Amino acid sequence: MIQVKGYGAVSKDSRLAPLGFERRDVGEADILIDILYCGVCHSDIHTVRSEWGEALYPVVPGHEIVGKVVQVGSKVSKFKVGDLAGVGVFVDSCRHCDSCKKGQEQYCEEGMSPTYNGYYRDKVTKTFGGYSSTYVVDEDYALIIPPTNQLAAIAPLLCAGITTYSPLRYAGVGKGHKVAVLGLGGLGHMAVKFAASFGAEVTMLSTSPSKEADAKKLGAHHFALSTDPEQMKQLKGKFDFILNTVAAKHDINRFIDLLKVEGKMLIVGIPPEDHSLSSGKLISKRRSIIGSMIGGIAETQEMLNYCAEHNIVSEIELIAIKDINEAYERVIRSDVKYRFVIDMKTL
Amino acid sequence: MIQVKGYGAVSKDSRLAPLGFERRDVGEADILIDILYCGVCHSDIHTVRSEWGEALYPVVPGHEIVGKVVQVGSKVSKFKVGDLAGVGVFVDSCRHCDSCKKGQEQYCEEGMSPTYNGYYRDKVTKTFGGYSSTYVVDEDYALIIPPTNQLAAIAPLLCAGITTYSPLRYAGVGKGHKVAVLGLGGLGHMAVKFAASFGAEVTMLSTSPSKEADAKKLGAHHFALSTDPEQMKQLKGKFDFILNTVAAKHDINRFIDLLKVEGKMLIVGIPPEDHSLSSGKLISKRRSIIGSMIGGIAETQEMLNYCAEHNIVSEIELIAIKDINEAYERVIRSDVKYRFVIDMKTL
Repeated sequence: MIQVKGYGAVSKDSRLAPLGFERRDVGEADILIDILYCGVCHSDIHTVRSEWGEALYPVVPGHEIVGKVVQVGSKVSKFKVGDLAGVGVFVDSCRHCDSCKKGQEQYCEEGMSPTYNGYYRDKVTKTFGGYSSTYVVDEDYALIIPPTNQLAAIAPLLCAGITTYSPLRYAGVGKGHKVAVLGLGGLGHMAVKFAASFGAEVTMLSTSPSKEADAKKLGAHHFALSTDPEQMKQLKGKFDFILNTVAAKHDINRFIDLLKVEGKMLIVGIPPEDHSLSSGKLISKRRSIIGSMIGGIAETQEMLNYCAEHNIVSEIELIAIKDINEAYERVIRSDVKYRFVIDMKTL
Repeated sequence: MIQVKGYGAVSKDSRLAPLGFERRDVGEADILIDILYCGVCHSDIHTVRSEWGEALYPVVPGHEIVGKVVQVGSKVSKFKVGDLAGVGVFVDSCRHCDSCKKGQEQYCEEGMSPTYNGYYRDKVTKTFGGYSSTYVVDEDYALIIPPTNQLAAIAPLLCAGITTYSPLRYAGVGKGHKVAVLGLGGLGHMAVKFAASFGAEVTMLSTSPSKEADAKKLGAHHFALSTDPEQMKQLKGKFDFILNTVAAKHDINRFIDLLKVEGKMLIVGIPPEDHSLSSGKLISKRRSIIGSMIGGIAETQEMLNYCAEHNIVSEIELIAIKDINEAYERVIRSDVKYRFVIDMKTL
C-alpha cells in the first residue's frame, strides 16, 4: 500500500484537518499521480457535512484533480511518467452496462465509483479524494491534460467544466441560439464561457446587479436581473435554452416562461427541496426540462481538448490547504470568483 | 348570419341546455359543416364550469367535430359539398409567426383561436363549439376525414387522438422502445393504440386492476398496478418513454424513476396543482420531461390519414345530446370507455 498525506473530515461536525490514509499499490493498468492542484466543489462541502446522506468517515474530499504522472503500471499506454493527468468525479464504473459501453460512465447502471466517499468495484475498498498528495487511478479513468501554463485553472474543468459542457453539447447549443445562464457561480461562469464559445448569444440571469460587469467579462452578451419583474417580462419566450445551475431553492416556472416554443431548460443544480413545476407551462409551448450530470471520460477528454484549443480555463482563487475551512465558509456565502483551487504544494 | 341550434351553459353553475346562436356567413375561404358527431372532452367540462378561469358565457363546448360539408366558399379548394370534414381544438391562428409558418399553429405566438370559448382574430367575435348543428370554418383549419363507416369513433381523434399522437411522434417512439402509458382514459386509450401501432412495447400503468383486460385489448403488452410498490420497483429504469396522460394530482417522481438513462416523460395532462419535481431524478440519468399540446393542422391530418390506413379509431359510447349532463358526471367519475360522442341527429 501507498501511504498518502491528505486533509479530511472525521465527522459531520469536524473541520478539515491533516489526515493520513492508504491507497492501493500501482497496478498494471494504473498510474500514480503526484497531485499539484485540486479544485473545491460545493459538493465537497455537502459531502463532508453529511448533507447528502451520512458520509463514509473519514472523508478526504476533492474531485477536480490535476497533477503529474510519477509512476505507470506495466500495461499503461495512455500515459508516461512526466505527463500531466487529471481525475474528475469518478474513478471506475462497471464497464459493461449500456451506459458504460456508450462511454457515458457517469450514468453507469451499477453506479460509478466516486472519486471520494465511495467504494471501488469490490464494494469494500474506500475511495479518498484529491485533497491529498497522490492518487492511484486506472488509466482508463484518468484524463490527459494538454500542456499548459495555467494548470491550477484547469482543475475545475474536471467537474464544473464538464457539468456545463455536457448538457450544452447534448442539447446541441450553437450559433443562432439564444441561451440564458441562471446563476453565476462555479458552474455558471463556465456555462457562460462555453455557451459563448459555441457561438450562442448569452444572457446572464442573476439576482445580484453587481455581477453584470463580471458576466460580460466572462463572455455574456446581456445581463438581466431575475428579481426585476419588468426585465423578466421583457424576456418571456425569448430563449432557446436556459442552463440552470442554481442549487438553492428557486421558482423554475418563472424561468420556464422565458423559453421559446420547444425551448429547453437544462438542469444541473440539485436544490435541497423538490421544484414546483407547472406542467401547463411545458405543455403550452412544447418545452422540455432536461437533467444532466457531469460527463463520461471520452466527453471530459473532448472538453479538455476543446478548452486547450480555445484557451478556456476556470476563474480561480488559489489557496493553501490550511485555509480550506475558511474557503468552505466563503463558498457557502458565494464569496468566490469563481472557484477555489488548492495548491497542493502547501500540504 | 347563420342561425345555429346548440347546447350550452349560461353560467358556471348551469346545466347544459338548448341554446341558439349565430355563426358568420360562409366566406370565400370557408366551408359549412353539418355536424354529425361531436366528442366530449374533459376540457369541455373544465371550461363550462369556469375551472380554467372565468368562461365567456354563454359557452357552447365541443372540439371533436366531424360532419358533412354542405356549402363551400368560392375560393375553397380542399373540400367539396358532400365531403366529410372535421374541426379540432382551434379554428384560426395568426398565420405569420414562426410556429404558424412551421405548421404548428397550436403554439401560435399570438395565441390560436380556440374552437369555442374564445375569439376569432378580430378579438371581438366569439367562437362556439361543436355541440351544435353546424360550424363555419376556414378550410385551412378544417381536416379532411378519409371515407369511413365509423365516423362517430373518429370524432375523438381530433383532440384525444392528436394529443397523444403528436408527442409520440415528436419523441420518435417506435420499434425497440419500451413505452409506458400512465392513465387509461380518453387520452390514455389512444396513447396505447398509437404506441403499439408504432411498434413499441407498451405497458399500461394504472391504479385500477380492473383495467388490465381492457388495456391488453387496446394493444398494451403489459399491465402494472402503479399503486403496488413491488411492481413499481420491478419497473425501475425500464422505460424509454412514459406518456403521462393523468390530469389529477399525482407524484411524477415515482414515475420518473421508471425511466432509463435518457428516458423521457411526455406530459399531456394538466393537474390543478403544480407537480413536485426532484431535479436529482432527472440529473442522475439525463432524463427529460417534455410537454406537448394537441398538434398542428398538418400533423392532425397526418394522424387522421394514419388512423384510416391502420384502422385506428377511438373507443366510444354514443349518447343523445339530452344526456350530456349525466355524461359529464360520468366523465368526472372516469366512468366511460373511453370517450362519449354525441350523436348530433338528436339535437
